[in-house]
Amino acid sequence: MKKPAAKRPTSSSPGKVREFPIALLGQKFMGKAHSNAWSQVARFFDLPLEPVMHTVAARDAAELTAFARRWGWRNACADWRQIAQLDEVRLVDIGTPNHLHKEQALCMLQAGKHVACEKPLAATLDEARVMHEAALAARRKGQQTFVWFNYRRVPAIGLAWRLLREGKLGRVRHVRAHYLQEWGGPQTPMSWRFEKKLAGSGAHGDLNAHIVDLARFLVGEEIECVHGAVARTFIQSRAAPAGTKSARKRCDVDDSLLFCASFEGGATASFEASRLAIGHQNDNSIEINAEHGSLRFGFEDMNLLWLADGDGRGKTDGFRRIMCTTAGQHPWVEAWWPSAHLLGYEHGFVNMAADMLRQLAGKKPEIPLPDFEDAYQTQRVLEAALQSARKGASVRLDQVR
Amino acid sequence: MKKPAAKRPTSSSPGKVREFPIALLGQKFMGKAHSNAWSQVARFFDLPLEPVMHTVAARDAAELTAFARRWGWRNACADWRQIAQLDEVRLVDIGTPNHLHKEQALCMLQAGKHVACEKPLAATLDEARVMHEAALAARRKGQQTFVWFNYRRVPAIGLAWRLLREGKLGRVRHVRAHYLQEWGGPQTPMSWRFEKKLAGSGAHGDLNAHIVDLARFLVGEEIECVHGAVARTFIQSRAAPAGTKSARKRCDVDDSLLFCASFEGGATASFEASRLAIGHQNDNSIEINAEHGSLRFGFEDMNLLWLADGDGRGKTDGFRRIMCTTAGQHPWVEAWWPSAHLLGYEHGFVNMAADMLRQLAGKKPEIPLPDFEDAYQTQRVLEAALQSARKGASVRLDQVR
Amino acid sequence: MKKPAAKRPTSSSPGKVREFPIALLGQKFMGKAHSNAWSQVARFFDLPLEPVMHTVAARDAAELTAFARRWGWRNACADWRQIAQLDEVRLVDIGTPNHLHKEQALCMLQAGKHVACEKPLAATLDEARVMHEAALAARRKGQQTFVWFNYRRVPAIGLAWRLLREGKLGRVRHVRAHYLQEWGGPQTPMSWRFEKKLAGSGAHGDLNAHIVDLARFLVGEEIECVHGAVARTFIQSRAAPAGTKSARKRCDVDDSLLFCASFEGGATASFEASRLAIGHQNDNSIEINAEHGSLRFGFEDMNLLWLADGDGRGKTDGFRRIMCTTAGQHPWVEAWWPSAHLLGYEHGFVNMAADMLRQLAGKKPEIPLPDFEDAYQTQRVLEAALQSARKGASVRLDQVR
Amino acid sequence: MKKPAAKRPTSSSPGKVREFPIALLGQKFMGKAHSNAWSQVARFFDLPLEPVMHTVAARDAAELTAFARRWGWRNACADWRQIAQLDEVRLVDIGTPNHLHKEQALCMLQAGKHVACEKPLAATLDEARVMHEAALAARRKGQQTFVWFNYRRVPAIGLAWRLLREGKLGRVRHVRAHYLQEWGGPQTPMSWRFEKKLAGSGAHGDLNAHIVDLARFLVGEEIECVHGAVARTFIQSRAAPAGTKSARKRCDVDDSLLFCASFEGGATASFEASRLAIGHQNDNSIEINAEHGSLRFGFEDMNLLWLADGDGRGKTDGFRRIMCTTAGQHPWVEAWWPSAHLLGYEHGFVNMAADMLRQLAGKKPEIPLPDFEDAYQTQRVLEAALQSARKGASVRLDQVR
Repeated sequence: MKKPAAKRPTSSSPGKVREFPIALLGQKFMGKAHSNAWSQVARFFDLPLEPVMHTVAARDAAELTAFARRWGWRNACADWRQIAQLDEVRLVDIGTPNHLHKEQALCMLQAGKHVACEKPLAATLDEARVMHEAALAARRKGQQTFVWFNYRRVPAIGLAWRLLREGKLGRVRHVRAHYLQEWGGPQTPMSWRFEKKLAGSGAHGDLNAHIVDLARFLVGEEIECVHGAVARTFIQSRAAPAGTKSARKRCDVDDSLLFCASFEGGATASFEASRLAIGHQNDNSIEINAEHGSLRFGFEDMNLLWLADGDGRGKTDGFRRIMCTTAGQHPWVEAWWPSAHLLGYEHGFVNMAADMLRQLAGKKPEIPLPDFEDAYQTQRVLEAALQSARKGASVRLDQVR
Repeated sequence: MKKPAAKRPTSSSPGKVREFPIALLGQKFMGKAHSNAWSQVARFFDLPLEPVMHTVAARDAAELTAFARRWGWRNACADWRQIAQLDEVRLVDIGTPNHLHKEQALCMLQAGKHVACEKPLAATLDEARVMHEAALAARRKGQQTFVWFNYRRVPAIGLAWRLLREGKLGRVRHVRAHYLQEWGGPQTPMSWRFEKKLAGSGAHGDLNAHIVDLARFLVGEEIECVHGAVARTFIQSRAAPAGTKSARKRCDVDDSLLFCASFEGGATASFEASRLAIGHQNDNSIEINAEHGSLRFGFEDMNLLWLADGDGRGKTDGFRRIMCTTAGQHPWVEAWWPSAHLLGYEHGFVNMAADMLRQLAGKKPEIPLPDFEDAYQTQRVLEAALQSARKGASVRLDQVR
Repeated sequence: MKKPAAKRPTSSSPGKVREFPIALLGQKFMGKAHSNAWSQVARFFDLPLEPVMHTVAARDAAELTAFARRWGWRNACADWRQIAQLDEVRLVDIGTPNHLHKEQALCMLQAGKHVACEKPLAATLDEARVMHEAALAARRKGQQTFVWFNYRRVPAIGLAWRLLREGKLGRVRHVRAHYLQEWGGPQTPMSWRFEKKLAGSGAHGDLNAHIVDLARFLVGEEIECVHGAVARTFIQSRAAPAGTKSARKRCDVDDSLLFCASFEGGATASFEASRLAIGHQNDNSIEINAEHGSLRFGFEDMNLLWLADGDGRGKTDGFRRIMCTTAGQHPWVEAWWPSAHLLGYEHGFVNMAADMLRQLAGKKPEIPLPDFEDAYQTQRVLEAALQSARKGASVRLDQVR
Repeated sequence: MKKPAAKRPTSSSPGKVREFPIALLGQKFMGKAHSNAWSQVARFFDLPLEPVMHTVAARDAAELTAFARRWGWRNACADWRQIAQLDEVRLVDIGTPNHLHKEQALCMLQAGKHVACEKPLAATLDEARVMHEAALAARRKGQQTFVWFNYRRVPAIGLAWRLLREGKLGRVRHVRAHYLQEWGGPQTPMSWRFEKKLAGSGAHGDLNAHIVDLARFLVGEEIECVHGAVARTFIQSRAAPAGTKSARKRCDVDDSLLFCASFEGGATASFEASRLAIGHQNDNSIEINAEHGSLRFGFEDMNLLWLADGDGRGKTDGFRRIMCTTAGQHPWVEAWWPSAHLLGYEHGFVNMAADMLRQLAGKKPEIPLPDFEDAYQTQRVLEAALQSARKGASVRLDQVR
């Protein structure tokens, strides 16, 4: 019997794989998802850098101790600014609420760190622009930025991207995307998510951000024009949160927002986000109709991609149900289980962590990772939709900066 | 052995059921569908009026003789105007191309006939308005008008209408409708459908007409505003029709048109029609999200309605697959076969013929039939969408007449 | 204006198409389905023989008059034996309960008629054998027999048959078939269907008959052995029928019967029929796994066929949803509506009537029609399953005659 | 900034949660799945025992070092028998090939360890019986046994179990289960899986084991009789494994095996396993029809359960699609992500590890864990099916020990 490694059994032998210390800001839902990604990634992927879970920072110190222990962060601190001083930390991962992203990202870029930020990039377009510019400046010094648009790393989306890039499907003509949830009914009490000054917007920034990113990513073009938009706040006040005694609170963000748009190459698109679509729990769905075929994806059946590549005149044309768990279908499949052993929600984060570490080691992954510039473009589209809803008119993207 | 009836075995005994002579204009696709409806309706339904297939009129006399024989029309004539002179004819059924509807309907209303017209009501809003006004005038003389929006008589839509009218689902918040087909690719040669002066518009008038009607019918409200629209002609020229020698022809109608809208009560809506959506053959689909539940229908699975009526917090909430073939589910089900014996496309026409004959006998059917006024409202929405696409701005329906 | 034909507008011109007089026995569910088939067939199909609805026979004379009028039968009679005397009648169509089939078929074959009989061929294997032998004798005199296994004429099944015959899918390895309904719970009162002396068996003869026929038809081989079977009568007594005063009645037929079998070529098969499968209304489903592909069909989505023809290692392999309404897919599609306009339950009967009339005119249809011999083979399989359930042992088909 | 814990940041504070050292035998597919379960379980669940990954044993020492490092096993050894000597190890987890299970389990039970064993319990019924008896003896000394039937811990199965135990669905009448895969075609080279002396059986022991366990578990009764079975070896020889030079090899295990059975309470059942069902990748499916409702599950859509609980006469009866990711639906849901964030294959193992640790701490989980006795009962059913296939006759379970 022998001990495989003196102290840190999960590390690989020194000399081969460089250690790569990471810090995380935030310990809520995204803190958990990112911690899981950093702790799982080296178990399933062979990587050129070994992620070291160096320090986690968050406000609630009591909670934080337990969190750090649970997830294996070596250090914990209640003041995120201290992270900037830690020379050995290479990547700072921001999983805090949207209104903190700008300050934190700027501080860490300033300190010479690589930065990975949760989506949406920022609460407003102005903040996003500043972040994008800071990222450009940092890029010249070799720093990289990432935005956690995790759905790009879902297996079925990886296959869809490959099929579209191969070119056999031809030019895209239509995109139809919606992100529908049902939790936002009147029985749901007030929270920061319904308050504009904290959340920026409602379903729009939360959900349309994902599908606008997915559409731009899959089509491989920018959106040129928003042709019209409607926003609605159906539930205009809510009970105060459980445990608090105050009166009902006013909600000032959208419950839903939908809009029509078009891409540079002429494809039309529709986007809709809602928290009031009963029967849809986490229904992030997109369909693309191209010249020679169509693709359809829905996150509630996230291991499936549907492809129609005939023209309807063949004897056996029709949408095909592809289970995206087979070797060769997408870049991450071999890391996991044998064919047809399904993946779940958190695997997208782990896949993304793997691609980030590879890119940080100089190996650009096959499927592009979103950076601050990319996320800024998505934010411009969201802003154009807000303006279009306000004005009752089309808004060209070249008017939105 | 005895003969059941001297001459016309399909007629019921005189004295009980009045004969009701009908004339048909047109012998193409819709001529066939309407002829089938008039010949099947008395076999499956018990009716207060017995439809008599009196005369069919169409231009191609040679073809017409065979058509009349095949379908049991007692008379045939090549000049549709003669129908106006036939005193005994009570209802004239117009199944001709759109640009003929106005002249034919006006002539027949003038002659005192009830008129049933194929959708869309007319090629332009101006024509539709004139027809609507003529129908109003005729109504004062006791004449009725109908428009063949046959999808209102699909079983699943009948059940959806009932569920919405019962009120348990509450107010509608979102409508999402699309009508997608795939036949319009570049390999399809030129035809009247791609020429504006003959067809009025492309996918918009053909397909959006159906889903705008369905949405108005199910929601039970009028659309108040079109918030933005995009139209596209992707295939700008086509080969001349087979058998002709001319050069390629220019197409000047839309291949697709999508738009956002809102209803009087505040519900948002999106509509999209396309002939270039590979994998969709006749995909007329609508989903409605209301306060307390959602409904989903797609014509490619026309015997099914999907209903979600929990709020997602119950242990067994979710969309339910309802096969709409059970006694009591909708007004037409008992006329056909035992439970779970599916119906098809043409049954909507037969169901509609039954309801028309009942209404003509003074018995208003439970589920409302579309008349010229109703179809004119749909046409106003279509026009508003065209204007919105042209202007790049919202168009309020009260500005469109 | 001109009259298309003096008396019978539905007939084609004499000299071209021979009239072909038909008589029908029965006026219940199957009487209605067959009447519809004979009245619709010449409207949708171009046929070498014109079906003439000559006479219908059934016991209840009052009801019969209305039935004959409604469906256009020229004559009606209460004594089915008189039909044998009608020289002009060429084909006798038997739509009566199972226990009458033998006597009626033998009488009509004796009288020189062609005979079409509802399924199952007979109540017992002994009766079926006698009928089969009578059909063989009559065949030598040029008489034809048919059995209304209508599911063979569902579009998706037509396409499945073609795909299997083309040979690309290779040898069949597995068949999995079930026919599940839900109406047979304890709340359903007594009827002849639950009484052995009237019905022969329960779900087995009613439902397994269909799927055994479909399996034999699609595989193109005979079943060689039944390897084991289980029959169950879960509801052992039922309330007397509504309107009668008697006590509860004992049920002595199976509510469900399932069995394993194998085909001559080695393929394995399972069959299950039940009237107690909640959520399944008319779920006649079959899946076939062959060497190079699989096919799946369910009658509740009867316009769809699912085909998987990769081997799971291709990047886009998977089951494909084929809407079976496209020109060229199956022999009946062009008779009906344009692509993607769905067909329903009764269309299988109309398609079968068309193929019968063609075969009677000497034109063998592409897809074989079941005759008495064919139905006798199905009945042997049903009998083998009953014996296997009784004995608790395998039963080879060569032991069952 | 402070360090959350001196050495082992993932451990909870001493005094509260006892450490619980575990050893693992095996480093292949199941070694990976079990290692992941032990490393993830304390991150997502709050547990009374803290799993310590003490030692992993496997033959290939070179491979083992990397494996241990990757997964965080503190020690590694090439001789599994040494584990028995490690006093501190409390639970031995056996993830080796089937033919090793008996010797390893007996050795570890002898040494006073709790034992968790991969399924199937053993290669033969004789071995399984001996293991069951050893477990009974060990139980008297307080030792527990477990068998990794991981599908019992899939969320949708947890909900199904609860719904069946609540009793509203009534008695079970039918079970229909199949486990179909497609990888076993002739292009797949020889491996131990096709050799009887190594694998025991083919698809039967590998796949039917899972669905027989699931059926017994969900129904909550034992199987009483196997009524007939068919086994087939379609591919009788295969190419030698890549890299070896020998001639083709004979395969002597089943490619598929199907059988009919019945439960003590009278419910009928069918089971089918195949590796030759194209289009099915990992299709472990089960449907249960009970008196008042039906449940349906398929592993390829593992986050969904389908429930039909009407009787088909209600206006909105039908199968309901339940996404099993909502708080309260099953015992493991709160440990993971918010509603509707899907789980994957490996989560069943983590859920099972959590329940084992709770039971080892004396807190019996709501949903029962399979032990050696339970797995022995499953093995008796598999043996009965093999005997039935051989004999061509029913086999009662009371004849199989």
